[in-house]
Amino acid sequence: MKQPPDISISRLAVYLRFLEEYKKDKGSKSTINSEELARFLDMNHHQIRKDLSYFGKFGERGLGYRIDELKDKIGKILGLDRKWNLCLCGMGNLGSALFAYRGFKQMRLNIVAVFDNDAQKIGRCIHGVKVYAPKNIPGVAKKLNIDIAIIAVPQIAAQEITNKLVKAGVRAILNFAPVKLNVPKRVKLRNVDLSTELIQLVYFLSTLA
Amino acid sequence: MKQPPDISISRLAVYLRFLEEYKKDKGSKSTINSEELARFLDMNHHQIRKDLSYFGKFGERGLGYRIDELKDKIGKILGLDRKWNLCLCGMGNLGSALFAYRGFKQMRLNIVAVFDNDAQKIGRCIHGVKVYAPKNIPGVAKKLNIDIAIIAVPQIAAQEITNKLVKAGVRAILNFAPVKLNVPKRVKLRNVDLSTELIQLVYFLSTLA
Repeated sequence: MKQPPDISISRLAVYLRFLEEYKKDKGSKSTINSEELARFLDMNHHQIRKDLSYFGKFGERGLGYRIDELKDKIGKILGLDRKWNLCLCGMGNLGSALFAYRGFKQMRLNIVAVFDNDAQKIGRCIHGVKVYAPKNIPGVAKKLNIDIAIIAVPQIAAQEITNKLVKAGVRAILNFAPVKLNVPKRVKLRNVDLSTELIQLVYFLSTLA
Repeated sequence: MKQPPDISISRLAVYLRFLEEYKKDKGSKSTINSEELARFLDMNHHQIRKDLSYFGKFGERGLGYRIDELKDKIGKILGLDRKWNLCLCGMGNLGSALFAYRGFKQMRLNIVAVFDNDAQKIGRCIHGVKVYAPKNIPGVAKKLNIDIAIIAVPQIAAQEITNKLVKAGVRAILNFAPVKLNVPKRVKLRNVDLSTELIQLVYFLSTLA
């Protein structure tokens, strides 16, 4: 299989979300073709077919895609057909905001542990999720089968906690700390970098002046 | 001028950050060439030259770039040579986390107003920044010359507050609410979309299984 680009994966998620909504609205309609899909999503239908083509054959000529089948297939491709365990590192303002984020459940991501170095927080339970000290990462990550870690600790603490997570076998990390983290190649790291977004806006404004 | 892609703008910001650090470390060195820059940043030097080429001629053959000049030029290109006024909409957990973000100051972005619909918060000052009701957006945005708005309100309130901001003349918006906002073409909108990042991680993990 040719490796699909990240952007195709993101678009598959968009298709899936649309199909779920569409199914709710138009439950009686069982098929949709790429032109219709493209019109609803304000996209090019070649793009949609190309994105899907990375993962095999979808739909039938003249008929289009069977909606339920397409939904299931995309869900499976994206790994949304199973549950994943997530830990949240850092329970400050950002960590608390993330803890409340509803999108996790929609994606079947379960926060199973929180790590924070604040003695006031360690040992407490937040909506049923226990707060542990960072030194407990190795034991907890293995015991609770943590798949994904979210880093919401201060910049200065981010690499150290990342090292602990990687050593404990966590393979996927979403980093919110404004620092470039080093991880081995076997670990997938994504960064949410505010400054990159802001610079685009500032540049745009400066081109107007 | 050929329109540079967003990714080149992001990389210019990376070059700038590096040059600032480099200047601090090696104050006596006054030039750097693209090969050195590429080595430090673990990039391809053709890429660096291409990114810069969108904005004119930089450096001299055999000599490289004068560090101070390159720093100033990139800063000017990105719009970082002047101050920008920013408002933060929503002062919940996420808003509070953003309020504390140090990167704003580094980019000469000043939070000049907060908007929130919580009567307990309206009228208060947070580190010298006043909290206003959303209905005051038109007056406040004009009076304080707000350039950029950050949306950190719940999904359900995001479009309405965006409409108010756009109407008040705000031209750049960074949206954290998990919803696709509609803005006119003259407004630059960037989204920080957690679910897109998470889906990449989940897909990666599912390809391992």
